[in-house]
Amino acid sequence: MKPFMDKDFLLSTETARTLFHDYAENMPIYDYHCHLQVNEIVDNINYRNISHLMLGGDHYKWRAMLANGADESLLYGDKGSGSDWDKFYAYASMLKYAIGNPLYHWTHLELQRVFGIYDVLNEKTAKSIWDRANAMLATDEFRCRRLIEKFNVKVICTTDDPSSDLHNHIALAKDPTFKVKVLPSFRPDAALNVSKAGYGAYIEKLSAAAGMPIASFEDLMAALEKRLDFFHAIGARISDHGMDYVPAGDATAAELDAMFKKAVSGTPCTHDEESAFKTAALVRLGRMYAERGWAMQMHMNAIRNNNTLAVRKYGPDTGYDSVGDGLVAENLSALLNKIEMAGGLGKTILYSLNGRDNNVIASMLGNFQGGVPGKIQMGSGWWFNDQRDGMVDQMKTLANMGLLGRFVGMLTDSRSFVSYPRHEYFRRILCDVIGTWVENGEYPADMEALGELVQGISFNNARDYFGIPIE
Amino acid sequence: MKPFMDKDFLLSTETARTLFHDYAENMPIYDYHCHLQVNEIVDNINYRNISHLMLGGDHYKWRAMLANGADESLLYGDKGSGSDWDKFYAYASMLKYAIGNPLYHWTHLELQRVFGIYDVLNEKTAKSIWDRANAMLATDEFRCRRLIEKFNVKVICTTDDPSSDLHNHIALAKDPTFKVKVLPSFRPDAALNVSKAGYGAYIEKLSAAAGMPIASFEDLMAALEKRLDFFHAIGARISDHGMDYVPAGDATAAELDAMFKKAVSGTPCTHDEESAFKTAALVRLGRMYAERGWAMQMHMNAIRNNNTLAVRKYGPDTGYDSVGDGLVAENLSALLNKIEMAGGLGKTILYSLNGRDNNVIASMLGNFQGGVPGKIQMGSGWWFNDQRDGMVDQMKTLANMGLLGRFVGMLTDSRSFVSYPRHEYFRRILCDVIGTWVENGEYPADMEALGELVQGISFNNARDYFGIPIE
Amino acid sequence: MKPFMDKDFLLSTETARTLFHDYAENMPIYDYHCHLQVNEIVDNINYRNISHLMLGGDHYKWRAMLANGADESLLYGDKGSGSDWDKFYAYASMLKYAIGNPLYHWTHLELQRVFGIYDVLNEKTAKSIWDRANAMLATDEFRCRRLIEKFNVKVICTTDDPSSDLHNHIALAKDPTFKVKVLPSFRPDAALNVSKAGYGAYIEKLSAAAGMPIASFEDLMAALEKRLDFFHAIGARISDHGMDYVPAGDATAAELDAMFKKAVSGTPCTHDEESAFKTAALVRLGRMYAERGWAMQMHMNAIRNNNTLAVRKYGPDTGYDSVGDGLVAENLSALLNKIEMAGGLGKTILYSLNGRDNNVIASMLGNFQGGVPGKIQMGSGWWFNDQRDGMVDQMKTLANMGLLGRFVGMLTDSRSFVSYPRHEYFRRILCDVIGTWVENGEYPADMEALGELVQGISFNNARDYFGIPIE
Repeated sequence: MKPFMDKDFLLSTETARTLFHDYAENMPIYDYHCHLQVNEIVDNINYRNISHLMLGGDHYKWRAMLANGADESLLYGDKGSGSDWDKFYAYASMLKYAIGNPLYHWTHLELQRVFGIYDVLNEKTAKSIWDRANAMLATDEFRCRRLIEKFNVKVICTTDDPSSDLHNHIALAKDPTFKVKVLPSFRPDAALNVSKAGYGAYIEKLSAAAGMPIASFEDLMAALEKRLDFFHAIGARISDHGMDYVPAGDATAAELDAMFKKAVSGTPCTHDEESAFKTAALVRLGRMYAERGWAMQMHMNAIRNNNTLAVRKYGPDTGYDSVGDGLVAENLSALLNKIEMAGGLGKTILYSLNGRDNNVIASMLGNFQGGVPGKIQMGSGWWFNDQRDGMVDQMKTLANMGLLGRFVGMLTDSRSFVSYPRHEYFRRILCDVIGTWVENGEYPADMEALGELVQGISFNNARDYFGIPIE
Repeated sequence: MKPFMDKDFLLSTETARTLFHDYAENMPIYDYHCHLQVNEIVDNINYRNISHLMLGGDHYKWRAMLANGADESLLYGDKGSGSDWDKFYAYASMLKYAIGNPLYHWTHLELQRVFGIYDVLNEKTAKSIWDRANAMLATDEFRCRRLIEKFNVKVICTTDDPSSDLHNHIALAKDPTFKVKVLPSFRPDAALNVSKAGYGAYIEKLSAAAGMPIASFEDLMAALEKRLDFFHAIGARISDHGMDYVPAGDATAAELDAMFKKAVSGTPCTHDEESAFKTAALVRLGRMYAERGWAMQMHMNAIRNNNTLAVRKYGPDTGYDSVGDGLVAENLSALLNKIEMAGGLGKTILYSLNGRDNNVIASMLGNFQGGVPGKIQMGSGWWFNDQRDGMVDQMKTLANMGLLGRFVGMLTDSRSFVSYPRHEYFRRILCDVIGTWVENGEYPADMEALGELVQGISFNNARDYFGIPIE
Repeated sequence: MKPFMDKDFLLSTETARTLFHDYAENMPIYDYHCHLQVNEIVDNINYRNISHLMLGGDHYKWRAMLANGADESLLYGDKGSGSDWDKFYAYASMLKYAIGNPLYHWTHLELQRVFGIYDVLNEKTAKSIWDRANAMLATDEFRCRRLIEKFNVKVICTTDDPSSDLHNHIALAKDPTFKVKVLPSFRPDAALNVSKAGYGAYIEKLSAAAGMPIASFEDLMAALEKRLDFFHAIGARISDHGMDYVPAGDATAAELDAMFKKAVSGTPCTHDEESAFKTAALVRLGRMYAERGWAMQMHMNAIRNNNTLAVRKYGPDTGYDSVGDGLVAENLSALLNKIEMAGGLGKTILYSLNGRDNNVIASMLGNFQGGVPGKIQMGSGWWFNDQRDGMVDQMKTLANMGLLGRFVGMLTDSRSFVSYPRHEYFRRILCDVIGTWVENGEYPADMEALGELVQGISFNNARDYFGIPIE
């Protein structure tokens, strides 16, 4: 029996251990997609206790406490009226039921790597861990910037609205005491959501940011392009689109204008109108990204804010989301083809929250490749798929239908500064998959080639793919 | 090489063996969903031979014989004109081709556990097994009640129409010689099927059972509530809904009444009408269940009676069903949310016959949890998924996205009194999954915690979740 | 560590090794579905170099080169302007990134089995392999017929339009120097595509081949039946249908005629019209096949020619296809049921390009079985699923829900004369799956039964199922 989560955690063969310890483990981290709040880095915040650090902002953990029967009013998120200790204790008590859940491993990796605590967290150890961790958190070594530096993070790409003035990014870039590159990403979802209430107010905000009136679809595209250039000047090279469904449909210029005006005036567009509007906008944006050498991310098949009562209490995006099962193949093919025909599909990363779409996506890549290694990427196991089985399925499907060796690898997608061990988790799993193949005689034991593969997927592929200058 | 199906069958690690033999093996059985005929228990029937016991009522086995090229007219079910021996021999001859099929394992577990016969069943051994088993079946030790008792079954929940007078359940409960709790479950599918022929006749039957006229949607709800209270008084705590598709749609009270009257008068409702009707009814029923502390089961994505000629010959539900692929995420989210808003979603168990829905369901749970441990459950691998790969996928998906430790575990869903070894099969697979994690250092080798998990999933979680008093 | 791709490649247990080497390895090949060009066999072509042999006609390989960043204009297929050596070198350079891809294994199996070259192909070895292989290819031993004979192929079933005069098949059958049975298969897709441009021209061609005017749906059926009889006389026993979606819908005779005339006159039918037209035609064809004892293949859920610009450059079917996700359960059930009711569904093989349909298909089989062992078959892992994980999933799903022992096994689906090692690949995987079950005590170590299973799935089942006389 292997010891619990020791240095060879998840590494089941000698080759896996060599690949991880000699090649992957010490590679820097390239976190090309996350939801960190940059003001917290600017302020170099500290944490009042381990509950604040570990549970704050991490919906996975809150959901698990509810599934364990926690009383929502006491223990759910910021608004749960229980004390930080109550929440931490509830979390510790839940953990034993979370066997097989990535939370079990993430939590212990966080304890080990952030605090050097190797205990198992449960009801009995909760108090001791609470005390030790909190003592450490009171020191400057555990402020947010030091946490980032400890994990050897080179690039962080946050998720930002085009109307953002990015003042935190700008401030941070000017600070010579912090070397990590923290760049915005361009996520214009709100500019495309013509079926949502509040569209008019959003367009006013965007208009102010772009310094131009927005009275038509063409104006909207021009304003977005201005903002894109602003993001570009700051150093951004990545966009992101939340596409809960893959849009389709054609619309004339006049129809697009009519939809735009309708939405701005406060009458939400229909689903079909929005779908056509988004299609047209994505084709235009896709071209803008390609012209600038950017990578375009598409996130598909989430269904969000499913529990109306909870969302009323806690707001949107507070842990009431789950996996959708919308069909994607036909519309995604048509959308990518339209971008290709409109001037050339550039670097693109496709994610689906539904792992059963993996083979659709992995085979879709091949329709549009060429010119850049791994130009069209299959995104790393996303959100609910960010666990061993999900990652293994993503890696194997990509390997079976495309080139695993050109994969740009892991991101955190996280709101938490202690989620960097997820890169370690990913690398262990990657090395184990590859190690098993090698030990079984399915790939030559050529450590030079294997080392290149593993270091590529850990860091170098992302560095080369995104083309962001780093020290 | 491990011997064929010995005491350590499916247990690949030392930890798995310890967990199974020391914790799981001797736990009682809580069969919270099955299709047994209670009159057979009341009558304490015996079996004329092993063909009658093993093949009768088990569509899985008939289907396998047809797939092996059997002549339907000779060998299919009760109506096949072949002798019981012909059928048993055909079954024995088919088995070797069923490598990897759960039938192979179920059959040998049945032979081992019911009869103490450890031979491999094939053409050569069929006659000897036939003779030995039949000799045993002629004794009182092999009557139906003794079979149930031998397997240490504590609770059996059958599947019953609201119009049923439950006289067999009542009779059995009064019989002091049989201690096993045999309870009805409330399955009001027929009351909601407003697109089916014969709806009017069904409503008359329900009206008679409820002792009230049913002339409107509200009457229907009132009648169902009366029957629910009747079931409740007998001890029932579980409902069940066969939802071949997940209904959606809104309808006013007047529209619901119009649909009801149309269906009663002999004009089937359209699919869309039925979908809205079912939605409204499920929201109301969901509330009734929650108010009484019941658990609500939803069974999705079966497609039934696919072979018209066969169904004409053999009737519905005779083995001509298969896996559907309808989309479930959006409608299921909306339905559960409506129940939650209408007064609170109570204990709920979600099953899909299509294993590819597992991640949709496992993540959906988390949208509505809280207050009761594992309040929203992902159902055990159902029907065609009731085999090792299906169970492992269900367990791992639940573990990855929720809390495996709160899972209420296995049921038989069976029409046969010899299907209890499927609980053993399930427990072996459970212990093997968990044992492998522990041996790989992915969970601490804490036998106290592990024993609690395994005994919980084997029996205790169901006992606590359903809250039915048992001795 | 096992050596790279030695004689026990993919065979992880002693039982697997015995099953492969003693039972499967030397069985002949029954390639019941491929896309070989028969004129190349008639001409007994040779290959100018290894690039021509290995890369020509193999879209998998071209796609991988593009995914590696190859310049399409230089290296893509026949039209890439690079030299044969440039393409081979680009392929060799790509391979190391294809870890886990079946190309990696196929390529090395091709080198080993065709050329006796056991080197790893990469940038360093490319030139040496090029020189050695090309020297061999210059000899008569490496002409196309000898390649087929070396792999002990007994039957090859190509894919042919009903209008084909099959002169190459006829010529080859008369050639006493070549013993391999090369038969046409009947693929009437073009005759059913009433929504495609050029339908009228196609019908003229078919009319000429059938020697009768085609002016109505009934004429079309009669003409197809004449061609079917012509194919039958040549020895064909297998049909094939590319069903990118599963058609549904009813139409009267008059409506079918109207659709037919509309399409012939140059106005494409709508999707719904085509769907009803195809349904009617498939029902009629299904009956014709059953009457003649033919097997009917249905290939579902491909989406084709996704990249318009590339298809303009390279033509259709040149590597720009991927996996679709259309729903299949309901329509497939209805279609098969209609054929059953119209006179009896005969031998049928169902393939989906989307592996997530496996459980729908494996359970669908059981609705229509009987009379012939494995009458309704689940097709082998197809196209993008023709890799280890895809094959294992197909085998296990079939085993779980049907009878793996009655499976007719592997086909190449290939355009290349060096793809026969894919049968070896398949057999190794099959033996490994079965061997693991046996070693784990899940099936008796009865080598007689196991040998029958393995030889059946390797060759004998197909021989018995298709009923084509072979020497």
